[in-house]
Amino acid sequence: MSEVLIVGSVAYDGLKTPYGSKDRVLGGAATYSSLAASLFVPVKMVGVVGDDFKDSDLSMLKRHGINTDLVIREKGKTFYWKGYYENDMAVAHTVKIDLGVFERFDPHVTGLARHIPFVFLAAIHPDLQMNVLRQMIRPKFVVLDTRDLWINITKPALVKVLKKTDLVVVNDQEIRLLTGEMHLMKGARALQKMGPKTVIVKKGEHGAMLFGPGWTFLSPAVPLDYVIDPTGAGDTFAGAFIGHVARSGKLTPDILKQAVIAGNLVASFTVQGFGTETIAGLNKAKLKKRAAEYHRFASIPKVNL
Amino acid sequence: MSEVLIVGSVAYDGLKTPYGSKDRVLGGAATYSSLAASLFVPVKMVGVVGDDFKDSDLSMLKRHGINTDLVIREKGKTFYWKGYYENDMAVAHTVKIDLGVFERFDPHVTGLARHIPFVFLAAIHPDLQMNVLRQMIRPKFVVLDTRDLWINITKPALVKVLKKTDLVVVNDQEIRLLTGEMHLMKGARALQKMGPKTVIVKKGEHGAMLFGPGWTFLSPAVPLDYVIDPTGAGDTFAGAFIGHVARSGKLTPDILKQAVIAGNLVASFTVQGFGTETIAGLNKAKLKKRAAEYHRFASIPKVNL
Repeated sequence: MSEVLIVGSVAYDGLKTPYGSKDRVLGGAATYSSLAASLFVPVKMVGVVGDDFKDSDLSMLKRHGINTDLVIREKGKTFYWKGYYENDMAVAHTVKIDLGVFERFDPHVTGLARHIPFVFLAAIHPDLQMNVLRQMIRPKFVVLDTRDLWINITKPALVKVLKKTDLVVVNDQEIRLLTGEMHLMKGARALQKMGPKTVIVKKGEHGAMLFGPGWTFLSPAVPLDYVIDPTGAGDTFAGAFIGHVARSGKLTPDILKQAVIAGNLVASFTVQGFGTETIAGLNKAKLKKRAAEYHRFASIPKVNL
Repeated sequence: MSEVLIVGSVAYDGLKTPYGSKDRVLGGAATYSSLAASLFVPVKMVGVVGDDFKDSDLSMLKRHGINTDLVIREKGKTFYWKGYYENDMAVAHTVKIDLGVFERFDPHVTGLARHIPFVFLAAIHPDLQMNVLRQMIRPKFVVLDTRDLWINITKPALVKVLKKTDLVVVNDQEIRLLTGEMHLMKGARALQKMGPKTVIVKKGEHGAMLFGPGWTFLSPAVPLDYVIDPTGAGDTFAGAFIGHVARSGKLTPDILKQAVIAGNLVASFTVQGFGTETIAGLNKAKLKKRAAEYHRFASIPKVNL
């Protein structure tokens, strides 16, 4: 069992969805993905918080086996994002962004942490992602997330860091922006030629597609009776994915497929509460129960033709 | 092995897609679904054509094991539809409709055909669907398709025929129109209360969901390198579905699941050519090859959590 190093934002979010609203909920890509990965392996989290960051939030992370020694506390405010969702919860509308101390985020990886073999670079400026990679010593498996913003304004830097990446996680809009291909499968093949041998395309309520060298796999999303707040679903997915891979230590197609399913399963809890509240309260028993339901839903019988 | 009775439109289509155009291609819901069902069982087709209908098309249908004794030839023109698709091939744009002899379509089922146990009512006026059902003697399994037009203008008649239906095939827009539910799963449960014990929701490139009493199943769509013309995909799906069920003669969850996969597999050929040209040239060897690829793509490994 290996450790996972996760770099990304730590934030407080103001969230409004058709099912209610909550302010100053613990969030941020590194938070969601670390909590998800911690279900499978110990996590080393790299981030920055302000002096308003609550000790109770820090101790909650530690209780989950997340090492926060590389989460730096600086003078100023923790990254704050305020947004809302309408009935189509696939689209987040931003009301306010206050970067706070995150504006000067300059991740430093020191000591033994530089030897951690599994690395998840959440969606931050690609130059920072590259800086982190330069500090790592022969990582075994580097997973990168990004977003439309970085594709639009820092594409050359992103293209550079993609070359150092084993697996990239994108959605269908991002893959079109990155490759210019309208067709998902052609886009995935084009992206593989840019560096990452493996590509995951997140399709929201339609699941996630995994493109390996010469093979493709789909894990449908978990069918849900209700969704409360979609914030953090993608980060949760990525965190559970790399956590599951790291625990096995292997990079076979079967392990990668299992990890995509684990990502979908864990993310299905995140969206059923506000912010990190359900993922923070998740345990293996709940996860195994949902996995059994999922297998009844998604297992393909052999077809007699 | 049982026979299937299929009632619906027989048409000539003028098709234009980003990949080309063809005029007066054999089409119509009954044609696509009969060709698809004929891969599994003998088919009795009920429809109407004009005096412009080509003998070569009639003999092509017969060569596929489709009995056309109840396809009536009347004075006038065969139903003609002209339409095009833009880059988003999920949306068909109608340019011209000439109903021709289809305007006075009054399906009669006579003789032994009234005892056929498996019935597919393609999307025609619900009063005509009901007339057909009244002529059938204790059918074992009735599958109904419909479209937004009939939900909008003849909902009371549709609600009546739904009560006599074992399984209904809808897309996500139709299920919202029919039930008023925005959430797919709630919509499917509401639809089950309207009569059909089983509901299939077609999600296009995202596959098809099957809702049985107390269980749910998803078959992802076959991932395709290219799509030429999406016309007839839904009808092909429904025809292969009922054909596969009829061949086994059983209505177990496993058979219904297999039949949904068969529907997706056969429909994946239809969209890779214009009109009925690929489905008319399809054989079991090609189908089995694609099924093997599909199983590699969609088979869910057991997840070690």
